[in-house]
Amino acid sequence: MPRRNHRTAVEMAARQRNISVSEFFLKNRHLLGFDSPYKAVLTTVKEAVDNALDACEEAGILPEIAVEAQDLGDGVHRVAVQDNGPGIVEEQVGRIFGKLLYGSKFHKLSQSRGQQGIGISAAGMYGQLTTGKPMRIVTRTGRRRQALEMLIGIDTARNRPDVQKKRRVPWDVPHGTRVEITMEGQHRSGAHSVERYLRLTAIANPHVTLRYTDAEGGAHSFERSSKVVPDAPTEIKPHPHGVELGRLIAMLKRSEHKALGKFLREEFSRVGSVTAREIIERAGQGLTARSYPKRVAKKQAGALHRAIQRTKISAPTTDCVVPIGEAQIIAGLRREVPAQLYVSTSRPPAVYRGNPFVVEVGVAYGRAAPSGDGDELMAQAGEPVTILRFANRVPLMFQQSACVMTKAIIDTNWKSYGIPQSKGALPMAPMALFVHVASVWVPFTSESKEAVAAYDEIHKELLLALRECGRKLKTHIARETRAQQELERRSHIETFLPHIGGAVGEILKLPEERRDQLVADLEQALARRRKREK
Amino acid sequence: MPRRNHRTAVEMAARQRNISVSEFFLKNRHLLGFDSPYKAVLTTVKEAVDNALDACEEAGILPEIAVEAQDLGDGVHRVAVQDNGPGIVEEQVGRIFGKLLYGSKFHKLSQSRGQQGIGISAAGMYGQLTTGKPMRIVTRTGRRRQALEMLIGIDTARNRPDVQKKRRVPWDVPHGTRVEITMEGQHRSGAHSVERYLRLTAIANPHVTLRYTDAEGGAHSFERSSKVVPDAPTEIKPHPHGVELGRLIAMLKRSEHKALGKFLREEFSRVGSVTAREIIERAGQGLTARSYPKRVAKKQAGALHRAIQRTKISAPTTDCVVPIGEAQIIAGLRREVPAQLYVSTSRPPAVYRGNPFVVEVGVAYGRAAPSGDGDELMAQAGEPVTILRFANRVPLMFQQSACVMTKAIIDTNWKSYGIPQSKGALPMAPMALFVHVASVWVPFTSESKEAVAAYDEIHKELLLALRECGRKLKTHIARETRAQQELERRSHIETFLPHIGGAVGEILKLPEERRDQLVADLEQALARRRKREK
Repeated sequence: MPRRNHRTAVEMAARQRNISVSEFFLKNRHLLGFDSPYKAVLTTVKEAVDNALDACEEAGILPEIAVEAQDLGDGVHRVAVQDNGPGIVEEQVGRIFGKLLYGSKFHKLSQSRGQQGIGISAAGMYGQLTTGKPMRIVTRTGRRRQALEMLIGIDTARNRPDVQKKRRVPWDVPHGTRVEITMEGQHRSGAHSVERYLRLTAIANPHVTLRYTDAEGGAHSFERSSKVVPDAPTEIKPHPHGVELGRLIAMLKRSEHKALGKFLREEFSRVGSVTAREIIERAGQGLTARSYPKRVAKKQAGALHRAIQRTKISAPTTDCVVPIGEAQIIAGLRREVPAQLYVSTSRPPAVYRGNPFVVEVGVAYGRAAPSGDGDELMAQAGEPVTILRFANRVPLMFQQSACVMTKAIIDTNWKSYGIPQSKGALPMAPMALFVHVASVWVPFTSESKEAVAAYDEIHKELLLALRECGRKLKTHIARETRAQQELERRSHIETFLPHIGGAVGEILKLPEERRDQLVADLEQALARRRKREK
Repeated sequence: MPRRNHRTAVEMAARQRNISVSEFFLKNRHLLGFDSPYKAVLTTVKEAVDNALDACEEAGILPEIAVEAQDLGDGVHRVAVQDNGPGIVEEQVGRIFGKLLYGSKFHKLSQSRGQQGIGISAAGMYGQLTTGKPMRIVTRTGRRRQALEMLIGIDTARNRPDVQKKRRVPWDVPHGTRVEITMEGQHRSGAHSVERYLRLTAIANPHVTLRYTDAEGGAHSFERSSKVVPDAPTEIKPHPHGVELGRLIAMLKRSEHKALGKFLREEFSRVGSVTAREIIERAGQGLTARSYPKRVAKKQAGALHRAIQRTKISAPTTDCVVPIGEAQIIAGLRREVPAQLYVSTSRPPAVYRGNPFVVEVGVAYGRAAPSGDGDELMAQAGEPVTILRFANRVPLMFQQSACVMTKAIIDTNWKSYGIPQSKGALPMAPMALFVHVASVWVPFTSESKEAVAAYDEIHKELLLALRECGRKLKTHIARETRAQQELERRSHIETFLPHIGGAVGEILKLPEERRDQLVADLEQALARRRKREK
């Protein structure tokens, strides 16, 4: 007999309800990077800058981006990000900024900074939640059109834009977009600051010019050092070996092709006529190249899926992933992290779950002159190394310990390269590790895109890249260690030489000046010997 | 002039599309805990068992749950979880299992294991993706109704259930629910196994009986040690101080109350007539207790929000959070983690972002007899401590390093309690740390609910609880250290006493037997002295 206060199945049923995706993320806003006022400012800048860079590169424009944070008092900030991108057409503005899970990057396999269609709308939603104010968007698609100004809120219960104002306005910018969000915000300097994020962005994106006015009025500027827009990554189709049975069934159902052979050739990468025929023959079950995809039965689809797994198919094309490159990584590090030695490694593309990806590692080792502004990117000797993490050229600012990059660094045996490391801990050295994962689909550990999930294939590639850099470092560190030991030995000898000279002089009863000569001779003999040893 | 391959704003617009929440999580399935076949099995069991326990407790039933994993060959597993809960009414079955973001727990503030309305549908979606097979549900709400059997898939493009079969069937269970999911799966033993998860569940839920048949045919059983269903947590309304301006505006718009005074009293916790009047008077702007909530203007809402922040309001009621309790924690640990010493601390409730929560810590210290099955929950001496993490009584099995509980353990100064610890690392000791966070809304770092986000207030409470336990441990460890030192001292003395005896004997020229007597006398004298010292 259920007790009082307890519920029956019927009572429980009455409480079941739909959850709108906006409500979900509003309640879980830490998943999107909005768990504190200072992080909210940084996340907003990050989402807006990511979008600006993606748009500029897609349009082949050298990006020039201005970021402004303004303190309106009472804990309220206005964050503005303005780009010189291609602008946004009128019909799309509302949904791009006022609806979660809406975008152009989710449904394609192509390397881009944004992928989910959540980020910038989430920033607007946070602004609305904390200040009640809508986003302000100004955008212009070219000289022939006037700029458009829109005030956009989000109807969270329905996850759709709430356009509060829309008008054409004069704007002395030929093309571009400006996003303004008013939010509960806080200024912070240091490792988790907007400035640090922009500085790291400059390292990984030498073709970008960034200007930033912080909430305390400070002006920061990062000029481009390269005038080449990176190659636009090409879009790929899914690789057959990365497609699960359920997805294959869904693709068959939705396909507009009339014949199975064509379906296989057109909807997957790396499948030509020969491979398609081989798959279909292996599947059997009465399937032919002319079977109608929509009518393939579940059992037949299962056979088709097994046949695909058993057929040798070339690895995915990898020009869809654009690495930064070893030289550019070192150039970027050189600009922002003064060091004695730089090494880097860019691995060949690999594949996880059918998705091509590339791992790159750069190392700045050994302290040189400190950087001007005191915002050091290199660890002190005896401290854990500094890690600079990037995914598709975007700096990852939080959740370092949850990231597969950190895991791979800990799992590397640094002692074998001469760098001290405790069990299960980061190596300790005056060293900054630049780590980059580029992919058509980066598997982040949460929607805030702050850490990369620990897929085995990615972990393995990271280990290989780190080891390559470790080996390159080893010679330098060994030399450094030898030089250090030599220095210590020399200082010992230099301390004792006069005593030895004195003692020998006394035994041989040499006059004062002969003794000094003897000490000098001894010093020279030792120095010659040392040279020969090298 | 844009280069070839580059896109204009109009071309980009054509590529913008809606993203269904199911598609989103399918592509990001690691967010839900489905990134490998073995983890998929564990996550499925976890989601199904969590739901079963929530339903049983809500209905006041002592839970009895059977878990079966069956290896169907070819990498395919069938996972079944059956409970003796209240069952599910027919109209709800489809949506509960075949739609993401649907549930009874999201929109209320009440402590429960599930909160998001994602978990079990995600497991079904993963099964469908990897095997093409729908979920099988059998449920019965009582003796008077026949059981219902349904086969449910998910239409991912639309995020809605695809009911493939529905019929009444005989079932010799008076009430309960059985979920069967066929999926790409793998059996694993050890720290991330289903068995470990069930064992930890038994520690934190002594009122539950669990039976498990693993994919290799092994049978595991965890009998309840308590016949008391935990107090059902009460549901609370939001606390005014935890409500942001944007949410206040939305609540005003949606309210069905006709007067502002009643709105404040009814839709918030801790607001009586006096407080409501005080808030409204402080807000000014022409607002009165009889203002119509739906018609409160934005500016007035802003004033109301500021007035709420400035008004003293009692802290949230905390009976909505049900701790496990110090005694139960120790009882649970005692059953599964043999140790020399157990201590525990259950903190008073605290509040983050308006949500009440409780932190509890238990410690099992020092190795005792090993547990029977060799699945050790306590670290070896000189190894990092074992952490057993729980949120709302659910064991957290992954992402340990991303969790605020781990962060708090690292941030505690264990050396001051006599336990060795390197900088930024876990303490090293033969010790298992049980850590529990209970809340009406646990802020997980991702939808897979594997780690708790680092909200400052939660971090602080964890530190306080860990320190309390540390202090309780200190005396024991100090005694142990003293005993250890004493043992060493004694063994030194015992080694040297004969020599001393010999030397003294020689000096005094004593015969052999007098020397032995002297050594014995010295030993006794020292022992007496040692006793006095204590």
